[in-house]
Amino acid sequence: MTAGLTIDQLAEKHSATLDTALDVIRTRAYWSPHPEHPKAYGPDQDGGLDAAAGQAAFDALRDRRFELDQPGTDGWTGSEVSPYGPRLGIEYPHADLSVLLPAMRSAMRPWRDAGPRHRALVCLEILKRISARTHEMAHAVMHTSGQAFMMAFQAGGPHAQDRGLEAVAYAYAAQAEAERTAEWVKPQGKRDPLKLAKEFTAVPRGIALVIGCNTFPTWNGYPGLFASLATGNPVLVKPHPRAVLPLALTVRVAREVLREAGFSPDLVALAAERDGEGIAKSLAVHPDVRIIDYTGSTAFGDWLETNARQAQVFTEKAGVNTVVLDSTDDYKGMLSNLAFSLSLYSGQMCTTPQNLLIPRGGIGTDAGHKTYDEVVADLAEAVGKLLGDDARANALLGAIVNDQVKERIEAAGRLGEVALASRAVANPDFPDATVRTPVIVKLDGAKPDAEAAYFSECFGPVSFAVAVDSTAEAVELLRRTVREKGAMTVGAYTASAEAERLIEEACLEECAQLSLNLTGGVYVNQTAAFSDYHGSGGNPAANAALCDAAFVASRFRTVEVRRQA
Amino acid sequence: MTAGLTIDQLAEKHSATLDTALDVIRTRAYWSPHPEHPKAYGPDQDGGLDAAAGQAAFDALRDRRFELDQPGTDGWTGSEVSPYGPRLGIEYPHADLSVLLPAMRSAMRPWRDAGPRHRALVCLEILKRISARTHEMAHAVMHTSGQAFMMAFQAGGPHAQDRGLEAVAYAYAAQAEAERTAEWVKPQGKRDPLKLAKEFTAVPRGIALVIGCNTFPTWNGYPGLFASLATGNPVLVKPHPRAVLPLALTVRVAREVLREAGFSPDLVALAAERDGEGIAKSLAVHPDVRIIDYTGSTAFGDWLETNARQAQVFTEKAGVNTVVLDSTDDYKGMLSNLAFSLSLYSGQMCTTPQNLLIPRGGIGTDAGHKTYDEVVADLAEAVGKLLGDDARANALLGAIVNDQVKERIEAAGRLGEVALASRAVANPDFPDATVRTPVIVKLDGAKPDAEAAYFSECFGPVSFAVAVDSTAEAVELLRRTVREKGAMTVGAYTASAEAERLIEEACLEECAQLSLNLTGGVYVNQTAAFSDYHGSGGNPAANAALCDAAFVASRFRTVEVRRQA
Repeated sequence: MTAGLTIDQLAEKHSATLDTALDVIRTRAYWSPHPEHPKAYGPDQDGGLDAAAGQAAFDALRDRRFELDQPGTDGWTGSEVSPYGPRLGIEYPHADLSVLLPAMRSAMRPWRDAGPRHRALVCLEILKRISARTHEMAHAVMHTSGQAFMMAFQAGGPHAQDRGLEAVAYAYAAQAEAERTAEWVKPQGKRDPLKLAKEFTAVPRGIALVIGCNTFPTWNGYPGLFASLATGNPVLVKPHPRAVLPLALTVRVAREVLREAGFSPDLVALAAERDGEGIAKSLAVHPDVRIIDYTGSTAFGDWLETNARQAQVFTEKAGVNTVVLDSTDDYKGMLSNLAFSLSLYSGQMCTTPQNLLIPRGGIGTDAGHKTYDEVVADLAEAVGKLLGDDARANALLGAIVNDQVKERIEAAGRLGEVALASRAVANPDFPDATVRTPVIVKLDGAKPDAEAAYFSECFGPVSFAVAVDSTAEAVELLRRTVREKGAMTVGAYTASAEAERLIEEACLEECAQLSLNLTGGVYVNQTAAFSDYHGSGGNPAANAALCDAAFVASRFRTVEVRRQA
Repeated sequence: MTAGLTIDQLAEKHSATLDTALDVIRTRAYWSPHPEHPKAYGPDQDGGLDAAAGQAAFDALRDRRFELDQPGTDGWTGSEVSPYGPRLGIEYPHADLSVLLPAMRSAMRPWRDAGPRHRALVCLEILKRISARTHEMAHAVMHTSGQAFMMAFQAGGPHAQDRGLEAVAYAYAAQAEAERTAEWVKPQGKRDPLKLAKEFTAVPRGIALVIGCNTFPTWNGYPGLFASLATGNPVLVKPHPRAVLPLALTVRVAREVLREAGFSPDLVALAAERDGEGIAKSLAVHPDVRIIDYTGSTAFGDWLETNARQAQVFTEKAGVNTVVLDSTDDYKGMLSNLAFSLSLYSGQMCTTPQNLLIPRGGIGTDAGHKTYDEVVADLAEAVGKLLGDDARANALLGAIVNDQVKERIEAAGRLGEVALASRAVANPDFPDATVRTPVIVKLDGAKPDAEAAYFSECFGPVSFAVAVDSTAEAVELLRRTVREKGAMTVGAYTASAEAERLIEEACLEECAQLSLNLTGGVYVNQTAAFSDYHGSGGNPAANAALCDAAFVASRFRTVEVRRQA
C-alpha cells in the first residue's frame, strides 16, 4: 500500500458534505454539491477537466482497450456503437468469474472493519473524482444512451452523482442509527444487577450485482452501487452491452480511490460481457451474489424477483405513466410544460408521460373551455413549436437509442388517429444519428381495442391522448393503470379542489408519485435527489424507491457480540 | 363513535414512553416499562388484574365462545388442549374472508390519514391494556405453549410487550425520519428560482398477515403485528390452531382500543381456522395480503418466501444453534449457565443451544484441564442437579408442547451414547402434563453418520455433545452449520484471545448473534428488547431480525405530491 488517503484526510475533505447530505435527506430541501453548469468544471478542481479536456479524455478512450487491472481477465470484449453513429471501438476486460468473485469476497473483511463512516468517506471521494471528470462522462453517456450532450452532462453527471451521494447518506444513517457498543445493566432488586458488554457490527451481505441499463447507465446505476458499497459489500457492475463506458469509467475511479485509501480495488469490478453471453442470468443466481440492483424490462425484473432467491433484489421495471387533464388556470403553461416532458430525450425516460387522459367533453381553462380535439391539437402545436428549430430539437431530443424504439414510432400511426406525426430531424454533427420528434395518437378510451395500445408500455416518443367520459373516469383508469401496469410518475392538471382530492387519493392508495399543475421549469419526468423519491416501490413499476431507508436497510445486517461484563 | 380517546389524551399518557423507546433503540441500554414481577400488577393500574383476578379472568374464558364482533363470522371453531392436560373448550369466530378482508381494507384510509405519531400512540395504548391483563395472558400462554407459569408470565407478558413496543418505536422512527412537507427552492442564476411545495405521506402496503406459532404466540407475534399496524396496515392474525387464545385476547384488546380511539376495529382481526383447514397457505397468496410475518418450520417459511410474491415476507424458521467450548476461567459458572439454557422450557425455544462442540482433547478451565468425557459428565450432572427437585424442574421445564417433541426425546437415545437420559417428571397440579428433562447425547464429529443427527434441527430438549479435533475445527463446523442450517444464537466459552477472535470472526462472516462466556444470570437463549437483536436476518434461520430498521422500512411506502409553488 502507498501512504495514500487516510481517514483523517477523507474526513477533512468530505465530512461537511456528508453532514449536509444527512440533513437534506431529512428536510427534503433543495441541495446539490455537484454543479449543473459545464463551465463550473475545470482545472481549479483537483483532477478537474474542462470542456476541452473532457472531450480530449473521451477521444483518448476510443479505439483501444480500457484497462482496469482486475484479477481474472480472460479476454477482451466490447461492441458499443453510439446512437449518434460512430463505433466507439473500446474493448473491456472480460472477467473469469471463478477468479474475480473470490477476489472480491476476499476484499470484504477490511472494508467491513473500516466501519460505516470510513466507508462513507471513501464513497464520497469516489464521487468527487467522478464529478471532476464530468465532461468526459458526459460524452460517454451521450454516446451510449443517445442523450443530447447537455442532458448527458447533467443527468449522467451531477444528477447521477447526487443520487449516489444520497444513497451513501442513507446507508450511513441506517448503519449509524444505533450505538456500536452498549453497557447493558439490568436491575435485579436487592441482588447485583445483570451486566453485559455489547458490541454491534454492521456486516455486509456479500457480493452486490448492479445490472445497468442502456438509457441511464450512471443515474440508474449509482444508487445501488453506492448503497451496497457504503454498507460494506463488494460491487460487481454488469453494464448493458450498449452502455459499458460510463460504468467502466466509474469502476476505474472507484478502484483507484479504494487502492489509495488502503483497501482492495476489487471491492468494485466490472463484468463486461460478450455478445449474447447473457451473464446477468447466471450471476443473478450465483450463491455469492447477495444483492441485485436492476433497471430494465419487466420480464427480466420479474424473473430476478422470482428466481434470485439468495439475494435482496431491487428492481425498476416498465410502467405506464399517466397525466390526468381535468382543468387548468394556466393553459399555455400546461401545454408548454407537457410538450417539453414528451420531447425530452425523445420520451426515452422511465418517467415520461405516456397516457394523457382528457375528458371527451373538454376541459375548463383560463383561456376558455377547450374541447378534447382542441386540447390535443394545441398540445401537438406546442410540441411542434418547441421542436420547430432543428438545432433546438437536436439539443432536446438526443438520438433514438435502438431500433425497437424506432419501430415503435413507426408503428404508432397504425394505433389510432395521429394528432402529431413524428418528424425525422437531421443532426449536422452526426449524420448517422436517428433523431425523431414525438408522435401523439388519439384514442377513444371507451373502445376496447384502444386499450390494447394504451394499457401497456410503449417505450419511446409515443403518447396517447385518451378520450375519457369524465375526470372521475380518468381517475378510475389512472388507478387501474397504476395497479396493474405500474407507474414511475403521475401528473395531473386541475383547478378543481374536488378533482385534486380524487387524484391525490388515487395516488396515495395506488402508491404513485404525483406532480400537480406543473407549468414552469420543473417537469414530471424529473426528480431531484435528496428531495424527490424516484418511484414509490409500491406499484408494479418498481419494487424500490430512490432513495429511502428501505433501499439500504437490508443491504447489511447487524451482528451483536455480547459478553458478561 | 363515542367521545373516546383523543390524540391529546393518548399523547399525555404515552409520549414519554415513546420518546424513551426511541432513545433506547439507539443507545441499546437496558429498559422496560413492563414489570417482570407478578406482584407489580393489580387494580392500581387502569384495568389491572392481580394474580387472583387474572386467574379468574382466564377461568371465565373457558368452555364458551370468545366473542370478537368481527364482520363476516360464519361459524365457530376451536380445539385447544393445554399441554398441561385440560381441554380449553373455547370457540373462536371463524371468518368469512370474503367479508372480513374487504372490511379490513375499508378501514385503512382514516388510519393512514392519522399519521405515524397518532398510530404509534394508539399502539402504545393497546400495549398498555394488554400489559394490565398480563396475569390473564400468562395463563393463556401457559395453557397453549406449555411454558411454566413464570416463564409464560414474563416471556408471554412483559417481554412480548417490550418487543411490540420496540417495533412501534422502529416503525415510528422510520416514518418520521423525513419531514412531511418541504419547500423546495432551486436557484436559477439570474432567473427566478424554481419552487415546489412537496408533501410526503407514509402509506400502508395493504393487509398484513401474522402467522402465529405454538410456542411463543405473543413474543413472536407482537413484533410483526405492531410493526405493520404502526405503519398503517390492517393486521389479520392467523394463530396456530393450538395457541389461539393469547392472540385472540390480543386482538380483542386491539379492537377495543381502536374503536375507542375513533378508528375501525377491523384494523385488527382474527382468522381462527377449522381443523386441517390450512388457511395460511391460501391467505399468504391472496392479492390483498401484502405483508406476512411468520414463525415456524423451515419448509413452510421457504414456501412463503418463494410463493407469496405479492407480499413482503418476514420469516423465522428452524436453525441449529451451536455452543463452542474452548476453555473457561469459570468452569462452574459455565456448567450452571449451560444447564439452565438446555432446561428452560424443555429446550423448546428457537434459541436453545443444540450442538455443544467440545475438543476431543478436552478444555482448559480454572478447575484444571477437563477431558471431553469429564466436561460432558459434569454438564450432565449440572443439569441433573438443577432439575433434581421436581417442583423446581416443573417450574423450569414446563410441559412438552406436542407429541413430536416427545417422540424426538425418545428417539434421541438411539442417535449415540446417552450422557444424560431424559426423565419424566410428575406435575402434581396437572397430572396429564408431559414433563421431561433434557437428554444429552455424545457424538463423534469425525464420524459421518453422526452428522445426520447433529446437522439438522432436533427441536426440543435434545442436545448433542459433539467431539471435535480442535477449537479450530469447532469453528469450521460452526461456520458450516450457520451457513447451511442457520442459527438464531451462537454461544462460546473461551479464555483465549485467539480462539475468541476466531469465533467472533466466524459469527461476523456467517452473520450469527454471539454470546460469549455467559456464566451468570443471562442465558444464550434470552434476548432483551431495545438492546439485543433476535436473529440476524443474514443466515437461513430467519430472513429478518427483531428488531431493526429493515424489519419496518418496507412495511410502508412514501408517496410524494409536489405542486408548483
